Amino acid sequence: MAYETIRYEVEDGIATLTLSRPEKMNAFTTGMLSEMLDALDRVDADDDVRALIVTGDGRAFCAGADISNGAGEFLTDGEESVRNADGSFNYSSPAARDGGGRLTLRLYELKKPVIAAVNGAAVGVGSTMLLPMDVRIASESARFGFVFAKRGIVPEAASSWFLPRVVGISQAARWCYSGRVFDAAEALSGGLVQSVVPQDELIPTARAIAQEFADQTAPVSIALTRQMLWKGLGMSHPMEAHRVDSRAILSRSLSEDANEGVNAFLEKRPADFPMKVSTDMPDFYPWSQEPEYD
Amino acid sequence: MAYETIRYEVEDGIATLTLSRPEKMNAFTTGMLSEMLDALDRVDADDDVRALIVTGDGRAFCAGADISNGAGEFLTDGEESVRNADGSFNYSSPAARDGGGRLTLRLYELKKPVIAAVNGAAVGVGSTMLLPMDVRIASESARFGFVFAKRGIVPEAASSWFLPRVVGISQAARWCYSGRVFDAAEALSGGLVQSVVPQDELIPTARAIAQEFADQTAPVSIALTRQMLWKGLGMSHPMEAHRVDSRAILSRSLSEDANEGVNAFLEKRPADFPMKVSTDMPDFYPWSQEPEYD
Amino acid sequence: MAYETIRYEVEDGIATLTLSRPEKMNAFTTGMLSEMLDALDRVDADDDVRALIVTGDGRAFCAGADISNGAGEFLTDGEESVRNADGSFNYSSPAARDGGGRLTLRLYELKKPVIAAVNGAAVGVGSTMLLPMDVRIASESARFGFVFAKRGIVPEAASSWFLPRVVGISQAARWCYSGRVFDAAEALSGGLVQSVVPQDELIPTARAIAQEFADQTAPVSIALTRQMLWKGLGMSHPMEAHRVDSRAILSRSLSEDANEGVNAFLEKRPADFPMKVSTDMPDFYPWSQEPEYD
Repeated sequence: MAYETIRYEVEDGIATLTLSRPEKMNAFTTGMLSEMLDALDRVDADDDVRALIVTGDGRAFCAGADISNGAGEFLTDGEESVRNADGSFNYSSPAARDGGGRLTLRLYELKKPVIAAVNGAAVGVGSTMLLPMDVRIASESARFGFVFAKRGIVPEAASSWFLPRVVGISQAARWCYSGRVFDAAEALSGGLVQSVVPQDELIPTARAIAQEFADQTAPVSIALTRQMLWKGLGMSHPMEAHRVDSRAILSRSLSEDANEGVNAFLEKRPADFPMKVSTDMPDFYPWSQEPEYD
Repeated sequence: MAYETIRYEVEDGIATLTLSRPEKMNAFTTGMLSEMLDALDRVDADDDVRALIVTGDGRAFCAGADISNGAGEFLTDGEESVRNADGSFNYSSPAARDGGGRLTLRLYELKKPVIAAVNGAAVGVGSTMLLPMDVRIASESARFGFVFAKRGIVPEAASSWFLPRVVGISQAARWCYSGRVFDAAEALSGGLVQSVVPQDELIPTARAIAQEFADQTAPVSIALTRQMLWKGLGMSHPMEAHRVDSRAILSRSLSEDANEGVNAFLEKRPADFPMKVSTDMPDFYPWSQEPEYD
Repeated sequence: MAYETIRYEVEDGIATLTLSRPEKMNAFTTGMLSEMLDALDRVDADDDVRALIVTGDGRAFCAGADISNGAGEFLTDGEESVRNADGSFNYSSPAARDGGGRLTLRLYELKKPVIAAVNGAAVGVGSTMLLPMDVRIASESARFGFVFAKRGIVPEAASSWFLPRVVGISQAARWCYSGRVFDAAEALSGGLVQSVVPQDELIPTARAIAQEFADQTAPVSIALTRQMLWKGLGMSHPMEAHRVDSRAILSRSLSEDANEGVNAFLEKRPADFPMKVSTDMPDFYPWSQEPEYD
């Protein structure tokens, strides 16, 4: 798949997905969604990729859904695809699915850590797509906005699940009810980003975090850990986590990776883990299926 | 319904509900509960109300349940209404429902943003009723206390659901196990309130926040957003949020409100949203029913 | 049960469980697990115990699972107990249960407040066992590490449920993906501990917190409150909490404890609560059963 709205590069074990419609402030389109989903599949399939950085080309990160052709553009497909014969909405149609949500649900299932490097304006879906990323850092010129109520719509991209968990319900409410655009300092104090750096340090900082995640860690361990943490956030009882943990500890403890990890530790030498995400995920993975859209 | 224990006023699109038994430090009674529930229905029904402020008359916000007649007063109705013939408790009786919980569950379903302006002592149910409000601000003379363990009872008003989500489980535990009364500074550092201001700035600050929520935002968008965020907090999987989002984005994107919101944005003019909460909530609302008490 | 790997003492109403294999940096073994579970049963059964402090003997708190005999030691029992006849793993076997998870699930059900006093290195299960404790304080020489990915395994002890709820998903991800060992200051800023004190103030600080929890609070109220808060964290709807609250408020309001609590308050005298955790928990407790492991 050739990309027209994003760029995708891999260097030193770190993939970078760059939103790239700089003349449109990287506004989100159905084409960009398809390309991002394709790139995320590449991230998961490529054992050379240990972490992903998402950033934007030019002055903006992502200025939101491209509404240059009007509000109907919030829809992934055209209006006719989501109407019943009597004109009522066919909410169960796959075409009725919010595009931002298709992206964030895919990010939620990713097997590699994701770092958002917010280089400029991140508004609407530009803000909500950040939420299932593991770490969010911003340049001093970044701007954020959950502006939906000011456009007559609502927060999307499953942000009503992610946002209160990431920043707390009170902060989520204030940002969403006001629809205000706010700066990087407010994003930091409100818990939306974990650090703010000068523009020229943004990508180096993101790469340093990615490298820390790749430094003598087992790729299969990281893939399982990412899924365990995000799925754990929605579990109702710690017994559910204990069932997964027990399977993971049992199968991992007797794996070549654990053998290497423990020996390297005892021998005080760097570990070199042999197992791969593409072929060596344990048999109990995935322990849950994505619920169907309906 | 004429109110005897609260006052209810609407001015400039902002409703204010004032707990008003100042000679009793606004202690909570079954009568106050009924009046508060009635006022909350008015808030939802009145399209001129864009946000609600809850505060107290006199020196206190609410000194807790009125126990001047003894511990049995914690009950909404008399003791005989909650006993089986053999003297055992009839926990399933509607009369057995905790009054504080009836209030907080109603606040949880509200369609308008709620701002607590805590003007003085907020103890027992005075503290727990704050939790489903979206924003909590306090005057410097405010006091808080989850004092239940010191009275031989337990946290109520569904606070075991709300409190750990609002302030974190460790802070919730410390306040509830000690039963200590603490000041506004501790409430701020512990995440219970979002700001502390001098007494004479309390209501102006609350009104400024309410006005920010009403400033060129679509009322139906805000009503849906409030329900999405609070309900999202209890969802187990982001797919559940995605189903709601997708319905909301589909129906809202093709609404008069979105048309106005997008056109106003593109034309760089203030938006004037035509749709009303009383009549124009989308057909998929409410997407979930309150579970029955049993 | 005589203890070989821990010490257990009760003084002034406060129990102290000290991990005590100082020559092994208190590394966690199946024997230590059994002894800790036994001690936790004693805490719950002994009405003279109002709170529990968990700390470590010597320089470390707990250096993790004892892997001096290799990676298979992560298993509670030997490898043969968790294999089917064809050599595949029998994940449903009770022997397949992660030992750390058996400990944290027991802590989750405890009826007394628990305070972790982290005196030194707390690595691997030494860090994850802290999470279901209510308060965590650290000495300046404490160290923490969710080092699992560096050993080729994964976070255990149901930490995928506890950790994102205690410190937030982003902080959880960063600590788990990097596998880094970090100091007490980082644990404080990241929300893992609530305060950091000099070594010689660690136990006195923990005891002061425990005494605050025991100061004129009703033991049955504290037991119910602890269960309500931790169980509330996993509930999907506040109605679930309201059902428990209502039962608790009804039965407690008409109890001898509430009578004493209210009278003491009205008479401005210290309360002396008559009811005991061992014999006087209300009839609706426990309102939920631990799900079975399978």
